Amino acid sequence: MRFNEVLKNVKNYEAGKPIELVMREFGIKESEIIKLGSNENPYGTPPKAIKAIKANANKAYMYPDESMIELREALSERFNVRAENIILGAGSDQVIEFAVHSKANPNNAVLMAKTTFAMYEIYSKQTATKILKTPSHEHKTEEFLDIYKKNKDIEIIFLCLPNNPLGECLDKKEVYNFLEEIDENVLVILDGAYQEYASYKDSNKKIEPKDLIEKFPNTLYLGTFSKAYGLGGMRVGYGIANEEIIKNLKKLQPPFNVTSLSILAAHAALLDEKFVLKSIKNNFEEMIRYEIFAKEKGIKYIESYTNFITYLFSSKNSSEIAKTLLRRGIIIRDLSSYGLNAIRITIGTPKQNERFFEEFEKIL
Amino acid sequence: MRFNEVLKNVKNYEAGKPIELVMREFGIKESEIIKLGSNENPYGTPPKAIKAIKANANKAYMYPDESMIELREALSERFNVRAENIILGAGSDQVIEFAVHSKANPNNAVLMAKTTFAMYEIYSKQTATKILKTPSHEHKTEEFLDIYKKNKDIEIIFLCLPNNPLGECLDKKEVYNFLEEIDENVLVILDGAYQEYASYKDSNKKIEPKDLIEKFPNTLYLGTFSKAYGLGGMRVGYGIANEEIIKNLKKLQPPFNVTSLSILAAHAALLDEKFVLKSIKNNFEEMIRYEIFAKEKGIKYIESYTNFITYLFSSKNSSEIAKTLLRRGIIIRDLSSYGLNAIRITIGTPKQNERFFEEFEKIL
Repeated sequence: MRFNEVLKNVKNYEAGKPIELVMREFGIKESEIIKLGSNENPYGTPPKAIKAIKANANKAYMYPDESMIELREALSERFNVRAENIILGAGSDQVIEFAVHSKANPNNAVLMAKTTFAMYEIYSKQTATKILKTPSHEHKTEEFLDIYKKNKDIEIIFLCLPNNPLGECLDKKEVYNFLEEIDENVLVILDGAYQEYASYKDSNKKIEPKDLIEKFPNTLYLGTFSKAYGLGGMRVGYGIANEEIIKNLKKLQPPFNVTSLSILAAHAALLDEKFVLKSIKNNFEEMIRYEIFAKEKGIKYIESYTNFITYLFSSKNSSEIAKTLLRRGIIIRDLSSYGLNAIRITIGTPKQNERFFEEFEKIL
Repeated sequence: MRFNEVLKNVKNYEAGKPIELVMREFGIKESEIIKLGSNENPYGTPPKAIKAIKANANKAYMYPDESMIELREALSERFNVRAENIILGAGSDQVIEFAVHSKANPNNAVLMAKTTFAMYEIYSKQTATKILKTPSHEHKTEEFLDIYKKNKDIEIIFLCLPNNPLGECLDKKEVYNFLEEIDENVLVILDGAYQEYASYKDSNKKIEPKDLIEKFPNTLYLGTFSKAYGLGGMRVGYGIANEEIIKNLKKLQPPFNVTSLSILAAHAALLDEKFVLKSIKNNFEEMIRYEIFAKEKGIKYIESYTNFITYLFSSKNSSEIAKTLLRRGIIIRDLSSYGLNAIRITIGTPKQNERFFEEFEKIL
């Protein structure tokens, strides 16, 4: 059958391996598998969200209120913006999809860091737009600016703050200085999927959506419930921008794009501040162990503002390491497909991290 | 800000009004509102699905197994096709989105009935493809064939079997005769969102996905968990087609497009045959009351193979009727935006229907 030409270049996201797959492929018991490959919150689902899901399970037959106004209002209160400044997606992923499809086309271009969240490129390829990347893996605003000035056809710039899968994070000041240079017709997407972590660790990293969109009306801030808010499986994310941008993105929003239980769970998670704060605090306490371990073993790592850490190897092969760990029931993320001899490890619970160090040490 | 030209013509789906909105706008108590506007299963969520959701609420922090293999295997068993023939979507809606974006473009065309599921047109408009419609509101294969033969650029044909929002349904024989005439490069989408209802009422309407895709490799069968399976709020649907088609649609499938609890709930609902069968049986028993009521009042209706019925008016105005009912807490669907002076009513529980007749009678 004939398909659109553009499909030939479209690729799929390489997701972190699920526990079920390791059970199937290696015959390992569920209780013996540790998943440190997908940057979920290892402390689980917020208790308030569990309660909301259980209490509303019997309403699963009903479509959600399409306006999703209650969750949008809760977010608007949290961020001190209007509900009209907020769009909800099935993960912030889907808001990226709306944004890319609203502006990118075969006659223009998008710009991103060499190594960053893979969905930027995947959605961009669907539109056959030109994809430009910085020479460095990590975000360097001078490289972004250099390419931007040489390419008048750039319509979207992606900044991942902090950056997945590497963990580094630009300072707010660097970001704002960069934004001053960008034309008002160019949409700059600031992906804050891990912002809760970054701003906890270092207030210089903190981006306030309200301040951002007031100063720079051409920006779109993204947030998610999949990371610190412990709802990866529920698929809820949001975009915050000025009303004109939101109105245009909404044109591409399918009806009921977030499930009814996801909306309720996200709302409950937003109010479960105690759980979220504790998760973030624990995360950085445990991260120190990964840093110490790396130093002891002479492994290079990238200072991380997220809930994961990236180990870089010189002699050892990252794919081999990932495979060996997998056979022992430990799921981490090999970054070889990004052109890096590195692995990305989600910071787990103390017990999970203990097990990781134990197994990892054996194969070093 | 600049946006893609195509956005100017894109419109949003007009969803059935949610209970929350009626509470907000008219100050009516939740317990006094009857929602017969969105064709949900009025008997609620399948008990096995409720159990699965509650039992797994604590796992909501974890991304689902991206392959969704367990649900795909359960469906493959149900329909006697291979798991490779199945793609899952956030509602069958999303499979429509994948299909349209995989083939439609500004240089070709799609064909659908004049009045049919609105998402066919909405997704098509996103691609700037040419949209062709039959002159009759209801599906007439001779009209489809006539337009098909005159337009060599048609890439997709939509058949809604039975048709939403009207309720009529082509016989399998008519469909197969039609398919014989269609080129193998043209994708024919057979939307079976209400097939469980139609095939229960009349075996001549029953489309078997296995037989369909074997005889006609250019077809895509769609099914959903939102209707008979009582999971509208969970957003799970599926497409069944030959492997080449599925492989191409999968290129447009975002990661984790169905939530982890939705996958488990759908799997459980699939095994809750007792609940589903009872819901369908009750539906047609109650539909008779709507037919008798219409005949008594001299209201024309379309014979329905679904869980809703369409009443057509000559002198009275459907928008006025819908508004008046809404103020009394009864949500039905006005079809004036489809160019019809008609309302679509979901067949409710006996108690809900009683209330509908009571209120409706007052305003006739």
